Amino acid sequence: MAKNITPRKDDYSKWYLDVIAAGQLADYAPVKGCMVIRPTGYAIWERMQAELDRMFKETGHVNAYFPVLIPESFIKREAQHIEGFSPELAVVTHAGGKELEEPLVVRPTSETVIGHMYAQWIQSYRDLPVLINQWCNIMRWEMRTRLFLRTSEFLWQEGHTAHETEAEAEEETLRILELYRRFHEDFLAMPVIPGRKSETEKFPGAVRTYSIEALMQDGKALQAGTSHNLGQNFAKAFDIQFLGRDNTRQLVHTTSWGSSTRMIGGLLMTHSDDDGLVLPPRIAPVQAVIVPLWQSDAEQAQVAPAVERVRAALGERFDPLRIRVDTRTDLRPAERFFTHVQQGVPLRIELGPRDVKEGKAMLVRRDNRAKTAAPLDRVAEVAAQTLDTMQAELFQRAVDFRREHSHEVDDYAEFKRVMEQEGGFVYAHWNGSRKVEAKIKEETKATIRCIPMNGDMKPGKCIVTGEPSTQRVVFAQAY
Amino acid sequence: MAKNITPRKDDYSKWYLDVIAAGQLADYAPVKGCMVIRPTGYAIWERMQAELDRMFKETGHVNAYFPVLIPESFIKREAQHIEGFSPELAVVTHAGGKELEEPLVVRPTSETVIGHMYAQWIQSYRDLPVLINQWCNIMRWEMRTRLFLRTSEFLWQEGHTAHETEAEAEEETLRILELYRRFHEDFLAMPVIPGRKSETEKFPGAVRTYSIEALMQDGKALQAGTSHNLGQNFAKAFDIQFLGRDNTRQLVHTTSWGSSTRMIGGLLMTHSDDDGLVLPPRIAPVQAVIVPLWQSDAEQAQVAPAVERVRAALGERFDPLRIRVDTRTDLRPAERFFTHVQQGVPLRIELGPRDVKEGKAMLVRRDNRAKTAAPLDRVAEVAAQTLDTMQAELFQRAVDFRREHSHEVDDYAEFKRVMEQEGGFVYAHWNGSRKVEAKIKEETKATIRCIPMNGDMKPGKCIVTGEPSTQRVVFAQAY
Repeated sequence: MAKNITPRKDDYSKWYLDVIAAGQLADYAPVKGCMVIRPTGYAIWERMQAELDRMFKETGHVNAYFPVLIPESFIKREAQHIEGFSPELAVVTHAGGKELEEPLVVRPTSETVIGHMYAQWIQSYRDLPVLINQWCNIMRWEMRTRLFLRTSEFLWQEGHTAHETEAEAEEETLRILELYRRFHEDFLAMPVIPGRKSETEKFPGAVRTYSIEALMQDGKALQAGTSHNLGQNFAKAFDIQFLGRDNTRQLVHTTSWGSSTRMIGGLLMTHSDDDGLVLPPRIAPVQAVIVPLWQSDAEQAQVAPAVERVRAALGERFDPLRIRVDTRTDLRPAERFFTHVQQGVPLRIELGPRDVKEGKAMLVRRDNRAKTAAPLDRVAEVAAQTLDTMQAELFQRAVDFRREHSHEVDDYAEFKRVMEQEGGFVYAHWNGSRKVEAKIKEETKATIRCIPMNGDMKPGKCIVTGEPSTQRVVFAQAY
Repeated sequence: MAKNITPRKDDYSKWYLDVIAAGQLADYAPVKGCMVIRPTGYAIWERMQAELDRMFKETGHVNAYFPVLIPESFIKREAQHIEGFSPELAVVTHAGGKELEEPLVVRPTSETVIGHMYAQWIQSYRDLPVLINQWCNIMRWEMRTRLFLRTSEFLWQEGHTAHETEAEAEEETLRILELYRRFHEDFLAMPVIPGRKSETEKFPGAVRTYSIEALMQDGKALQAGTSHNLGQNFAKAFDIQFLGRDNTRQLVHTTSWGSSTRMIGGLLMTHSDDDGLVLPPRIAPVQAVIVPLWQSDAEQAQVAPAVERVRAALGERFDPLRIRVDTRTDLRPAERFFTHVQQGVPLRIELGPRDVKEGKAMLVRRDNRAKTAAPLDRVAEVAAQTLDTMQAELFQRAVDFRREHSHEVDDYAEFKRVMEQEGGFVYAHWNGSRKVEAKIKEETKATIRCIPMNGDMKPGKCIVTGEPSTQRVVFAQAY
């Protein structure tokens, strides 16, 4: 059926790109490393935006927009920041027909320009907290790109907040980490491990970086959202001061956090199969497609009223924009089904003359192809139940997969073997040193994905040095 | 009250900037000519986006995303296009630490890169029409800038469609023009004149450009949305061909259309007053603010339950996110009112101990300060009626203003006098020549805003040359 998609077992990377091409999710742009997000892919992003934006607003955040061009000198003000981002910058040197006095960089992230504005907006503790988010495009010049996962331009949201105290900044950082976890698990059906990044892996300029880490079907990890406590680093660099309750000038404490179109790649690699895209119902732009089947005018006369009736019933229970009717009756049924399978529509509702005669419709789940016959007057109800079940089962399947591909390892030789032969998450003890972390990365390509915040907190001994460790950390090869 | 806002009669330009500053709508960015859209301003843009996006989707359009960087050579492929845009380009010459082989321009509009992709996506008449819209940032390097109205970077939506026939492309162009008219009149309460642009004023690369034109309080016109029939110009430049129903290769017919954050400037200049921003209720991010007034714990105990009751009732009839309670009870009432007035909240609902005792709340309209006492159990109902009335009256007031500032002129001396002394829209006959248009612009700063599509279609004589004219066109000095 899905003859143009390479099976996962043959070539996982090619499978990934084939699923994107078959689903018409994205294309490479004429500029190397940049991407065009096609309507089917962009609709997934719009769904992600809608849910995340609602969650941000429910927690008191507001949106704003800061400029895409940042003076080069801004990037240099925070020492770690420039070190982290300078190799990836795209630089505007000419504008309006003239060479610029100072080059401008296309934003690789906006801490600097936002810090500059916050310094002007914030005067007193009464102006705090500032809880701003921005939806925008970002540019990080990449040498090796992969659609959605790593492209020179991508879309994201970046939250930037300023607080009176260190405790409030930390609370915000963790609030967002939990919000990201909830979004991924409840909407994307992607189980994630929330945790803290090691010093090596943290954001350039952060005091502490937290992330959520997901496991893909090929055993590699994907960082799916990050939340940074920036301490007073950017407040110092951009002089963001306020008059405190005690009447002294103080520096604010800032945070930043982001999630991007990369989530679409993660979503794809968590649920899709050799026939193409599989989407969890709660995030699917189109939740159900009604496919009328007729071969003559007489059959059409019989089936069309039932289609309209089912559409109306679904439109009452679901968002009508997320229900489609496939009117391409000039194509063979298999070709029509094929499109919906490749685009990951969770539920197909088939309606042919015999179905109508028997007063039923056939519901087909995208993930396991399970079929359910539903009485015509109960289609919406059965569809809703089926989609709820599918959402829960996709999540459970991903949880099971992760459990089967998680290992506790206490020995470095075994660690190397697992990394080479099995992949997945490896929970191991580590002495906390950058040097050991670098050695492991060098020898196994595995990095510390995070120091998990939940689960097993028992102390042990570093797998490399035997030195004491307070808890296991999670290693994996990662995208 | 609004002591920091310059009155319109003293200095209209300064008033405009003062209203923006007082309402905290936007700021200049550190990069010259760029703008920061602050949360209060961005919330207006989000409301505009929500309504327009819904209207686009109801008419069959889908969203997508194309890259912000475009190869310089693309811009040069359409002769008029490069001529129109080259003076305004910002150019990326370096990326990833190296000089690029070909410079990349930051998109000034996306016809070219979208044309390039459409050439790959479109094969057959079955692939048509393509109805894609994009929400994104745009860069046009400007020498003289004004917040919202003209900045080097702005936000917009750009629709790009491809069709089988010329007639379908023209139909689409006009469908969107009407959509823009309806959005401006129904939501922004801005009356607009829909019409066609002269050859001089049309979009670089278009066959025909249509626009909607609004009149600001200072008698200057603002172009508020444009819709272009691009004919086969971009299809030729980017070789967008399809196999037609007759089995021959044909070029598609394309359209493009856009509206931007400029609309926020137009909205401001249509309705606001010397105290600050006035927003029509249907577009206002916050439609009503409840202001509890108490001076003691005893009064608080009395008032707080009524506040909660009113909030709950409003939350049922309105979007709860668009209703606010002003909890800053440490500030004097006048200071609290002041913020809401300057930010243009359409309705203030005052609730003090005496009001509660009398079982009522005081509703105060932002535009005319009219007060209505509403029984506590009918506040939501009265608020809804008041907001509907306010929306209608703002529109009617703008229609009346436009009528009072529209002139029919048949004589060039009188034309000059009106342009110099009164401003506004001037309906006059014109012989259709670029030369006369240029002379009038040179001598009066007035341009042809549009050749209107409705209204008086009687022929006459050109005010400059006396040559025959088929209908009056609309002249004005414009932003």
